Amino acid sequence: MAAPESVVSFDRLDPLKLKRDEFLLPRDTIYMDGNSLGPLTKQAKNRVARVVQEQWGNDLIHSWNKNYWIDLPLNVGDTIAALIGAEKGQVIACDSTSVNLFKVLASALKINSQRHIVLSQRDNFPTDLYMVQGMSEFLGHEACQLKSVSEDLLLESLDESVAVLMLTQVNFRSGRLHDMQSLTKRAHEKGVLVIWDLAHSAGALEIHLDQCEVDFAVGCGYKYLNGGPGAPAFIYAAKRHHRDMSQPLSGWMGHARPFEFEHDYRAGEAMLRFLAGTPNILSLVALDAALEVFNLVDMAELRAKSVGLSELFMSCVDTSPSLKDFALLSPRNKLERGSQLAYSHPHAFAISQALIAHKVVVDFRAPNIIRFGFTPLYLSYQDIWSASQMLIKIVEEQLYLEPKYHARGKVT
Amino acid sequence: MAAPESVVSFDRLDPLKLKRDEFLLPRDTIYMDGNSLGPLTKQAKNRVARVVQEQWGNDLIHSWNKNYWIDLPLNVGDTIAALIGAEKGQVIACDSTSVNLFKVLASALKINSQRHIVLSQRDNFPTDLYMVQGMSEFLGHEACQLKSVSEDLLLESLDESVAVLMLTQVNFRSGRLHDMQSLTKRAHEKGVLVIWDLAHSAGALEIHLDQCEVDFAVGCGYKYLNGGPGAPAFIYAAKRHHRDMSQPLSGWMGHARPFEFEHDYRAGEAMLRFLAGTPNILSLVALDAALEVFNLVDMAELRAKSVGLSELFMSCVDTSPSLKDFALLSPRNKLERGSQLAYSHPHAFAISQALIAHKVVVDFRAPNIIRFGFTPLYLSYQDIWSASQMLIKIVEEQLYLEPKYHARGKVT
Repeated sequence: MAAPESVVSFDRLDPLKLKRDEFLLPRDTIYMDGNSLGPLTKQAKNRVARVVQEQWGNDLIHSWNKNYWIDLPLNVGDTIAALIGAEKGQVIACDSTSVNLFKVLASALKINSQRHIVLSQRDNFPTDLYMVQGMSEFLGHEACQLKSVSEDLLLESLDESVAVLMLTQVNFRSGRLHDMQSLTKRAHEKGVLVIWDLAHSAGALEIHLDQCEVDFAVGCGYKYLNGGPGAPAFIYAAKRHHRDMSQPLSGWMGHARPFEFEHDYRAGEAMLRFLAGTPNILSLVALDAALEVFNLVDMAELRAKSVGLSELFMSCVDTSPSLKDFALLSPRNKLERGSQLAYSHPHAFAISQALIAHKVVVDFRAPNIIRFGFTPLYLSYQDIWSASQMLIKIVEEQLYLEPKYHARGKVT
Repeated sequence: MAAPESVVSFDRLDPLKLKRDEFLLPRDTIYMDGNSLGPLTKQAKNRVARVVQEQWGNDLIHSWNKNYWIDLPLNVGDTIAALIGAEKGQVIACDSTSVNLFKVLASALKINSQRHIVLSQRDNFPTDLYMVQGMSEFLGHEACQLKSVSEDLLLESLDESVAVLMLTQVNFRSGRLHDMQSLTKRAHEKGVLVIWDLAHSAGALEIHLDQCEVDFAVGCGYKYLNGGPGAPAFIYAAKRHHRDMSQPLSGWMGHARPFEFEHDYRAGEAMLRFLAGTPNILSLVALDAALEVFNLVDMAELRAKSVGLSELFMSCVDTSPSLKDFALLSPRNKLERGSQLAYSHPHAFAISQALIAHKVVVDFRAPNIIRFGFTPLYLSYQDIWSASQMLIKIVEEQLYLEPKYHARGKVT
């Protein structure tokens, strides 16, 4: 069934439409799970092959200098900085989001050492809470204590006992978007430092870390940044903290002079001190190459398209009587949403599996949620329209009742 | 100049000679720096390309189940276990050696919680010392305190105040090999837990972790295991500690049920609790594929060849009057050596650069040391003989005096 002319014309006018050619998506697939794992780009595929063959294979150990491997963490960081509203020299790409959270938590707690409460949201992505719990067990509750509250209690919980406010900008489940500027300001008024987790926002919407005077941030390389499965994550630290920040994972690559093999640790300059072990080159080059797709992308345009795609989908659901059991869990107001929509449905799991079998890739979150991700660089308005038609077909024809859509895998 | 018949016959009889065909080494290069960065194998090159194209590119998010990405850390760990004398289920591949050291240090200090001294060697690889220093700063000196002593004072420093003995089995600079069995036993007699760093031994010699009753170990994926630049490292933990061990980098992948997104951390079973963030798949598959080269390799044969290669080189140096200024820093006794030789020379830096320019890849360690690595899977006796002849030529003809061999790079 052909899409309505209005949908076709959205695509015709889309300033980002040429970006799709840079992605190597499987044929006929509508990939709405870029918020879990971004797809492969031509640049990433080619660069990984070239680095494996030429740099690892031929140049071997000399690549650390000759091919600038040693500079990758800061260079990739600077590329990411441009996407999140940060001046250069404040972002580094390394390790995982979880490990990086530990580093910035340690830094923030040290700077705000008169306090020990880390305030967060109960439905934050679990790894964020787990990392605070791990630090709390390790250091003792009198040095670090997690206080997780429901979203509506966040503001009233922001008081002078709180050392750090740690929030994820876009909720992994509901897609709800926090007001970074206002929350950061409210925190600072109480002497609280803020850590923002940008896992579901970096590469998906406009972020202004410097302008919002954020203290620290972490983010994920493998979602909207398309860096590949388990790609390196990143850390942002505002320049004003560079002198005072320190973290306990003080490995040799964070040393001021790693190749002098000194006996005592001396923290490297600025962001370098967030490095621990030897950087993982294959995954850094995949991420570096994947970021090329953001060249010349206006993040305001990207955000506008994300909103457009989401609203098209919402209106398809709203106007289809057969989808009346889908309840939107994400905010209706676009200013309060990230780049995904979450719907609950009594048969969410089976419907998500049927969608996937019909090449509309979404994901399921227990107990009854389907997440639809809207990634403007490779999804078209016609894709979204087709996805909604497939959803209608699956529900109307009860295709999801087939037993094969009811078997649970380990990772969904 | 052709090698003497004796050298040629060593190669003819070498049971490992066919392994070289599995490596993609640059033409005419004698690569004696596998102890810094192992070379590319055909298997790794092909597997990375296939995983990028087919698993990331086509199967996308489904690869976590369909292509067993989720099992890679334990599966790669089990493959490594076979190389280091460990029963399955005691090794996991993840993160960097530095980050992994933090995890096992935390575990060991918790198990031995009545004590707080971490005993190590002054000339241990710096990152090992730095990680203890970082933990000590973080936890406080009364909870964790590094005591680093010279090698000859190790035994007498092993007393009831020591919580953990942390040593690198083969010294990164001198190649000196510790007696793992005896030191572990002496430590246990004093109630001290041991952590062995296998960075310069895993894949290079026979290791018997289970038999030596080692408590914990870490090791590097990118040296003798050829996993690629910055490859994931690994952790070994003896089964008897699995119930009691815990570590503060308690990210979601180490949770007992990561995909249930519970609010509170519950440590996963056994080795899984050493995971923090999402595993890096591209680098894990490179390492996994690289390990195939060890299929059917008898580690005793590998060790015998490593000794053979090293002794051939030593005898070439010993019998060449022009090399009289080379002083061997590694032990002469093969039982006390790893798989490398370190020589000092007043012009070590320039000579190392001249060797590299003449396609004998070695590395330099300040202030005046050249390291020669002997990796039996891809080096032949003729390679070693040719390398020694090149060294003689460079010294006799004073080729190293050329100014271009005197410029220092950032990483050497």
